[in-house]
Amino acid sequence: MGRQVAIVGVGHSKFGTRHDANIAELAWESIRQALDDAGVGQEDIEYFVVSNAGGWSSEPLPAVVVGEYAGLNPKGTVRVEAACASGSAALKLAHDIVASGQADIVLAVGIEKMNESPTPTVVEYIGRAGNFFWEFQNFGLTFPGYYALYATAYMHKYGATEEDLCRVAVKNHYYGARNPKAQFQREITVEACMNSRYVAWPLKLFDCSPITDGSAAVIVASEEIARKLTDTPVWIRAIGAASDTSNLSKRTDFTSLRAAVEAARMAYRKAGIDPENPVKHIDVAEVHDCFTIAEILAYEDLGFAKRGEGVKLVREEQTYIGGLIPVNLSGGLKAKGHPIAATGVSMAAELTRQLRQEVEKERQATINKGIALAHNVGGTGHYAYVTILSLEKPSK
Amino acid sequence: MGRQVAIVGVGHSKFGTRHDANIAELAWESIRQALDDAGVGQEDIEYFVVSNAGGWSSEPLPAVVVGEYAGLNPKGTVRVEAACASGSAALKLAHDIVASGQADIVLAVGIEKMNESPTPTVVEYIGRAGNFFWEFQNFGLTFPGYYALYATAYMHKYGATEEDLCRVAVKNHYYGARNPKAQFQREITVEACMNSRYVAWPLKLFDCSPITDGSAAVIVASEEIARKLTDTPVWIRAIGAASDTSNLSKRTDFTSLRAAVEAARMAYRKAGIDPENPVKHIDVAEVHDCFTIAEILAYEDLGFAKRGEGVKLVREEQTYIGGLIPVNLSGGLKAKGHPIAATGVSMAAELTRQLRQEVEKERQATINKGIALAHNVGGTGHYAYVTILSLEKPSK
Repeated sequence: MGRQVAIVGVGHSKFGTRHDANIAELAWESIRQALDDAGVGQEDIEYFVVSNAGGWSSEPLPAVVVGEYAGLNPKGTVRVEAACASGSAALKLAHDIVASGQADIVLAVGIEKMNESPTPTVVEYIGRAGNFFWEFQNFGLTFPGYYALYATAYMHKYGATEEDLCRVAVKNHYYGARNPKAQFQREITVEACMNSRYVAWPLKLFDCSPITDGSAAVIVASEEIARKLTDTPVWIRAIGAASDTSNLSKRTDFTSLRAAVEAARMAYRKAGIDPENPVKHIDVAEVHDCFTIAEILAYEDLGFAKRGEGVKLVREEQTYIGGLIPVNLSGGLKAKGHPIAATGVSMAAELTRQLRQEVEKERQATINKGIALAHNVGGTGHYAYVTILSLEKPSK
Repeated sequence: MGRQVAIVGVGHSKFGTRHDANIAELAWESIRQALDDAGVGQEDIEYFVVSNAGGWSSEPLPAVVVGEYAGLNPKGTVRVEAACASGSAALKLAHDIVASGQADIVLAVGIEKMNESPTPTVVEYIGRAGNFFWEFQNFGLTFPGYYALYATAYMHKYGATEEDLCRVAVKNHYYGARNPKAQFQREITVEACMNSRYVAWPLKLFDCSPITDGSAAVIVASEEIARKLTDTPVWIRAIGAASDTSNLSKRTDFTSLRAAVEAARMAYRKAGIDPENPVKHIDVAEVHDCFTIAEILAYEDLGFAKRGEGVKLVREEQTYIGGLIPVNLSGGLKAKGHPIAATGVSMAAELTRQLRQEVEKERQATINKGIALAHNVGGTGHYAYVTILSLEKPSK
């Protein structure tokens, strides 16, 4: 149903503290790369979707500021927000616009300048990323606090330790150290992580993704156009999307994000992936490790491990290259950085280059199944998007 | 190309100052009506698009707050923003999602609580709805100030007067007085308008749309589903979308909004409407009268009148029922109210009911061509969406 859609160009800014670029300049850094990569000009883009959460931004209309600077007027545009999953939502909409036949070439760009700062501060703003009225204002829950609830529940139920959480950070820093676009480019040890200060027990500083400025861009095209533009189109095989309650107090299980389970189920069904054993289909994944516990939950929510056994993948180093399924070879949100609304687009850009075997050699996955997965969560599982990319064109 | 998509249910809250309802309750007011109107339940909605600008909102994740309260979990969702055109952008995306085959039934809901208030204040926030860095912060331009530039340019070039602008307000209050959902339900006179205080010369208080709380909802469905649900599907025949420069200083003509011209051109081409004489095809229109001058520009940008002759339509009362083409029979943004991101969805809900001949008798257009047009502008022509609805299914 609908037309097939492929990624034909990707771009990715340097992630980090980017006081050298304003929001439009930082967006252009990735847009320009994506245009060059696709071999198209601004005039070829028929619509552009700008992913920006940006409650902290001085510019309340980021899409038009980016549009003017990037030379995209008079093309139609919209800004989208799905919290930390905004980038994947932008990619879904770009996909659907092309699949519907309303446009042949669409740009999705994710941009966030978190260090631009604000009233409220960026930390307070992120703390509100749940239900502000009940849980932030009345109970004082902060964003690390939300995920700490999941961490303690998981540790209690399955015997995971703080060291186990730190092992996720160690892996992601290992790969971040090999990714020139990553915010943190040094390895860390379990000891360093264990010695870092508590943010919200049991989560320590090194369990948390950082405050990041950055942008990423993806250009998608219809099959006919994609075939003309590139010999290596990366097909968007399926996208699953789901939501969960705004209030965490309305949830019953803190060892899984229901929205992620649902989004994965949808994506696997559309993509023809066996939900009982998805790793047999998938070469490489990027998952939403906003906190280390979130990566372990992702393994289980995606079916990479049985319930309670995600932590075993960590202990056995099964998500390094050469293991059962390599995860977050970009460094993940933890080390690559997490510019909120750019993250989902960054995942798609990274996985496109992984499938094309273009990334730095030490962090290149072995590609033989030709399928990659992105798992992108907004808030504390308030939103979830799971995207399946493939080298092979999907069958109808 | 793509599947045909129809509006199968609409809902509309009372617009006004709504301290009686929080953002989720106010959204539910229209969602519930739309579900009832379509004859579907929450479980039938496969994805929902939430239109909310809401830089002033305490809830930074409006889509999830609305989703929980409206019982829409675990369906996928996203929040979209295209300034005052957000609602039309939401409808476009809902349309494209269904047209692409990714879903059969999608909800678009627009919600704004402008009186919830904030730092910055709502007036300051709207003032930033251009290029904050250059034009708001450095030159102190406010939102009425932006449109005042257009008003003075138009008056200078074509000899329109302040009385002419007031005549637009008089018409829209005339119809608002007949719309129970409108914020302002009383008629005004040209004299009263002329005696109202200046906000940004030549625009006076009665030239300006108000600060409004409100929501509107539209449910769209694929042809197959629409046929089962209703005998009067209203087809989304075409949507045009365009953008213009963030900085007004980069524009050369202040008597037209280029983005609106471009969006209309796209929509007319897709819908098979003669751009030289569109009124021969169209029964009724809702246009974006955020300020009275904007309605006159809209007449010309849409081709309802030649350049410089939009003001003649006003003087001759050609946009009342019985005239050349009735415009803003809802009361328009001016009298119905303008809850930023709800406005575009409100236009689609209103026009659906006009085409079905369901609105109050005194403000019901004569429907014999079966086509209605919505013109929705974001910022000062930063965004524009033009949507064509029809009783007859579009030909491929």
